[in-house]
Amino acid sequence: MKKPKILIVNDDGIKSKGIRHLIKIMNDFGDVVVVAPNKPQSAMGHAISLEKVLRCDRINIDNGSQLEYSCNGTPADCVKLALNKILHFKPDLIVSGINHGSNSSINVIYSGTVAAAIEGALNGIPAIAFSLLDYSADADFTETDKYIREIVTKLFSNKFKNNICLNVNFPKPIKGRKIKGIKICRQADANWNEEFDERIDPKGRKYYWLAGNFVNNDEETDTDEWALNNHYVSIVPISFDLTDYNLKDYLTSKLNE
Amino acid sequence: MKKPKILIVNDDGIKSKGIRHLIKIMNDFGDVVVVAPNKPQSAMGHAISLEKVLRCDRINIDNGSQLEYSCNGTPADCVKLALNKILHFKPDLIVSGINHGSNSSINVIYSGTVAAAIEGALNGIPAIAFSLLDYSADADFTETDKYIREIVTKLFSNKFKNNICLNVNFPKPIKGRKIKGIKICRQADANWNEEFDERIDPKGRKYYWLAGNFVNNDEETDTDEWALNNHYVSIVPISFDLTDYNLKDYLTSKLNE
Repeated sequence: MKKPKILIVNDDGIKSKGIRHLIKIMNDFGDVVVVAPNKPQSAMGHAISLEKVLRCDRINIDNGSQLEYSCNGTPADCVKLALNKILHFKPDLIVSGINHGSNSSINVIYSGTVAAAIEGALNGIPAIAFSLLDYSADADFTETDKYIREIVTKLFSNKFKNNICLNVNFPKPIKGRKIKGIKICRQADANWNEEFDERIDPKGRKYYWLAGNFVNNDEETDTDEWALNNHYVSIVPISFDLTDYNLKDYLTSKLNE
Repeated sequence: MKKPKILIVNDDGIKSKGIRHLIKIMNDFGDVVVVAPNKPQSAMGHAISLEKVLRCDRINIDNGSQLEYSCNGTPADCVKLALNKILHFKPDLIVSGINHGSNSSINVIYSGTVAAAIEGALNGIPAIAFSLLDYSADADFTETDKYIREIVTKLFSNKFKNNICLNVNFPKPIKGRKIKGIKICRQADANWNEEFDERIDPKGRKYYWLAGNFVNNDEETDTDEWALNNHYVSIVPISFDLTDYNLKDYLTSKLNE
């Protein structure tokens, strides 16, 4: 096989530890180009920039064979710009991350990391989003290596379908506890129970900080939450067809009543 | 039935013509509270504000029985803030829009209007996103009235399921041509063919404007694109479980090969 061409993106920003870790791994698989945000873009969902101009500059951050570009846009902007202006070829794979923090379950809809992968898949490019369940800037990504290599190897050896978008989460590292393996999962039914922190500014005006608790409503064992809680790597294959097909049939019958 | 409580949100900003039109209609159905962005937030997807403080102030824009709040956050922020801090009750319905411009097909993943509806549905509240296929600030929303009333009436009379999220698009108004009716649809398989507009700033640095053409790859007649092109109102029921279940089974079999 010809040397694969790989695009790397993330939402924590081009200098974050997670993307630096991912670049090192992916350099072993092919020719890597990084197009990533110049500042953190967490929880940007699938936002794109319609009202501001985009810039994308060559940058050198650390050693390695990768080419790197720093962009002032969202993760989805980075992928669009890479595919249409920066790269002069269609990549064989897009990898996004490694995100500092969970993108499992309902977090998927808020995630810039996953949106970047979806943006790739929309353009017919296999795409994988990687996230580690540790929000700290200095999170330990060591354990992810083996599984990232296994998943990417399977993808490049055509074990998986070509038109694929995977949401991969790694359990929070716990000293003395090894990851048990990989589970293919569905997205758990969960939500955030918001508890805004209400404060008063020096001028006497109210303001709010978004805060909240994650609530897992799903007790089944085939979910990403179950896998992660039981110290497995979770892989959820992602669709960007949001149609609720069961409801579609039901509504069609009800519409004409 | 007790008078329904209705939350209204949008992504074009609280002063846009589309939301003003929707407020007037919804005042006939129940007690309306508006919590909407203080400036345009188009294409914000499901972005939420983790890094900035949120403000939400009472505002009076035009006459009517509605209570209104202007918020500095994204559409999804507005819904979270409304449900947790502004309203002191759970609304019976969330309506989002009327958006100036299409949210059909793949636009759904970029849409702040639809994200606001999804955020409501996530919290167990029936939610409907309305969009008109006309981007102009002065778009003519007159024809939407009859269909918005029909859809909301069906929902309140329990013709639809309670736990529901609908993506409703109206065809672009054409003089002398009447809307033919409503079609329950699936999301068409389509994408944007980006063509970034590359320019040079006064300092000699490159910058880009995001531009592109919408490409419908789907020729079937059960899609939202077909309905809209044939001058029907399209309704796509939306799911926020992004799991690709077909691929899940396939990958499970391949993982252990």
